[in-house]
Amino acid sequence: MSEMPSSAAPLARLSSRDADFDARLDALLAWEGVSDAEVQTRVDEIIRAVRREGDLALLDCTRRFDRLDVASMAELTLEAPRLAAAFAGLPDEQREALEAAAGRIEAYHQRQRGESWQYQEADGTVLGQKVTPLDRVGVYVPGGKAAYPSSVLMNVIPARVAGVGEVVMVVPTPDGAVNELVLAAAHVAGVERVFTIGGAQAVAALAYGTESVPRVDKIVGPGNIYVATAKRAVFGQVGIDMIAGPSEILVVSDGGTDPDWLAMDLFSQAEHDEQAQAILISWDRAHLDEVEASISRQLPGMERRTIIEASLGQRGALIEVADEAEALALVNRIAPEHLELSVAEPERLLDGVRHAGAIFMGRYTAEVLGDYCAGPNHVLPTSGTARFSSPLGVYDFQKRSSIIHCTAEGANALGPIASILARGESLTAHARAAENRIKR
Amino acid sequence: MSEMPSSAAPLARLSSRDADFDARLDALLAWEGVSDAEVQTRVDEIIRAVRREGDLALLDCTRRFDRLDVASMAELTLEAPRLAAAFAGLPDEQREALEAAAGRIEAYHQRQRGESWQYQEADGTVLGQKVTPLDRVGVYVPGGKAAYPSSVLMNVIPARVAGVGEVVMVVPTPDGAVNELVLAAAHVAGVERVFTIGGAQAVAALAYGTESVPRVDKIVGPGNIYVATAKRAVFGQVGIDMIAGPSEILVVSDGGTDPDWLAMDLFSQAEHDEQAQAILISWDRAHLDEVEASISRQLPGMERRTIIEASLGQRGALIEVADEAEALALVNRIAPEHLELSVAEPERLLDGVRHAGAIFMGRYTAEVLGDYCAGPNHVLPTSGTARFSSPLGVYDFQKRSSIIHCTAEGANALGPIASILARGESLTAHARAAENRIKR
Repeated sequence: MSEMPSSAAPLARLSSRDADFDARLDALLAWEGVSDAEVQTRVDEIIRAVRREGDLALLDCTRRFDRLDVASMAELTLEAPRLAAAFAGLPDEQREALEAAAGRIEAYHQRQRGESWQYQEADGTVLGQKVTPLDRVGVYVPGGKAAYPSSVLMNVIPARVAGVGEVVMVVPTPDGAVNELVLAAAHVAGVERVFTIGGAQAVAALAYGTESVPRVDKIVGPGNIYVATAKRAVFGQVGIDMIAGPSEILVVSDGGTDPDWLAMDLFSQAEHDEQAQAILISWDRAHLDEVEASISRQLPGMERRTIIEASLGQRGALIEVADEAEALALVNRIAPEHLELSVAEPERLLDGVRHAGAIFMGRYTAEVLGDYCAGPNHVLPTSGTARFSSPLGVYDFQKRSSIIHCTAEGANALGPIASILARGESLTAHARAAENRIKR
Repeated sequence: MSEMPSSAAPLARLSSRDADFDARLDALLAWEGVSDAEVQTRVDEIIRAVRREGDLALLDCTRRFDRLDVASMAELTLEAPRLAAAFAGLPDEQREALEAAAGRIEAYHQRQRGESWQYQEADGTVLGQKVTPLDRVGVYVPGGKAAYPSSVLMNVIPARVAGVGEVVMVVPTPDGAVNELVLAAAHVAGVERVFTIGGAQAVAALAYGTESVPRVDKIVGPGNIYVATAKRAVFGQVGIDMIAGPSEILVVSDGGTDPDWLAMDLFSQAEHDEQAQAILISWDRAHLDEVEASISRQLPGMERRTIIEASLGQRGALIEVADEAEALALVNRIAPEHLELSVAEPERLLDGVRHAGAIFMGRYTAEVLGDYCAGPNHVLPTSGTARFSSPLGVYDFQKRSSIIHCTAEGANALGPIASILARGESLTAHARAAENRIKR
């Protein structure tokens, strides 16, 4: 008997000409973060406990959830020398790669710094906006299998470039498992202190402060459903970054890129987890066939085959469209986190792209280069939120204050306008406050 | 008998030297948005109904909550000619004031436009960020007593300046009460269409779309607890602006500003509602006495006396501090929405101000000038959130996409770095995707 034929492609084939295309695409894209009432209740209880009992509650949660037999917060605190030691203990090539990546990420983010500005009007009135960094930021880093040193660089460096006064990191170490690469990345990025706590209790500690953990002004970084639920709950008390959904890639290929490269680019997204989404669009059907064959051929050799198979099977797709214009329309409808324009002239398509977290141009720009070291941030809007949000950046760690300085002339000119509009709103104290500055 | 002595000042007097100062200040500043479980349940039901039944649910809610006997969405839709007619029907001075304010707001916000940028590295690799406007934005405008035409200008004009494709407005008209000034402001600001719907149902319609109401990408604008709860619930499906708390003013006076002006500035904040907060800080005790006397003297003549009295009584304060440095420390601790630096040399204090939504400099810059027509936005971070957030601006209606375009050389240089870091994270498909672009 010959060997088993390679199984049918482990992902959906769609064509924009199919009668049920819209419905199938919508089903494929559908994703809603679950807001489980039980999770909500448990998170609320943990937050209340941390607000009420501070460090005691943190120690209790860490004993219960991370199975650590700790007696004081000192055992859950890592200072700068410990982080430096983690860095020093790495193999040379990892130390060099971390520093090279950090250098490029910093260089890119330096271009994002917002600056204060002001202008003067004819009567001497000055208007403007003052830009200041946040005082203190907390970075959440997941423990266990999803502990990514690259995420430490991507979350901490923009805060540093913004001029944030202090960056505090939290990372759980369940059963005592410490990730030296994560600590080394914290050292390279310039983290002051690390608390080895996690879950909703770590979020609550950062939001409200305890005897040991300082209250921060904003919490960033990914986490599991408890972390996400806690972040949503403390939003308002502190700032938060977006609540991330599963990672996604959308590749547009003109047929000229090596199918094996494209298959691996899809795998690199699919291997994140079973919910990740990898989609390839092309107007070249034979090319889609080739990528499909390459997927079937390369899949058995992949270390994370099981995850890739589940992810491609549930949420992956190869989509045939009529032409470039239809591909662009789909891009904007999907508003992907990562968009690869694997075409001969990506600049020509760029103008038509309205919604994408990050755009990888041309055949050589593998999305994974952006994950680690190209420079731009890898924290990107998911699940279509690129329609209204942006990559994490320096601007997320700066805020603005409006500046208004009216001269006597200026107040005299603006007073009547304000007075008329205030009286139109029946706010007469407003009107009188403006009228006080009108010359008699 | 002589007339009744003016009653004791209707607001608290604090001194930073008091033993219980910190506790009293914390109590004064405390404010948490209620997350009533019953409101949450009702809002969730309304959102589900609108997602399921679309226009039918909107009509049903509008009949029940706004007591309008409507049979079709056409009756709840106002097109551009209706808005133009509202504007044409206003008295000259209101038309001119609206246009003057809109012109100044637009001129200021033009300075906030973000622009795309990119740079090229030595090997030809291009990195950058592309800035694009949102496709469609929904502006919520409250009906009834808090219907402010100035809010229409402040929410719509930045979206227009950003280049948003379409701005849709919703405003409830309970019992059929239409506010012509609000419609006129919508005309001046350039709103395309108005739907006279409100509450959680209007938020749900904007977030998910119905047969008549187009789905938007972001919802901005203030509202009651139902609106705020609905906005929080649809966050992620669409973008939202911040959830606003009560309005606040913090005035720092060096004693040289007319006490009557300062009293009226405090009133102008206090008259918003009973939860509003008005605080004056000075190192000049006699001056605080004068302002206190002026408050007692002017209060009986105020149209909104009852609200002002309640607001000052519950949340207002006159605070004596030792000196300028202590005043600045308090400013940064409070992180006020509005900060008036009513001093001789406000520039000298400005460097020390880290946290404030808007800063009004000098004796002539009444906060109310900023509410209506100075130019900067009056939608500002409240309840201490100026520690991490900014005034509403053009940047809230633009988003960014990272651009990465590696040459073959660039991919060859970055590939090994990405590969080493990916293997450190056990993401081998990531590593291989990078290795594919390394020259053999």
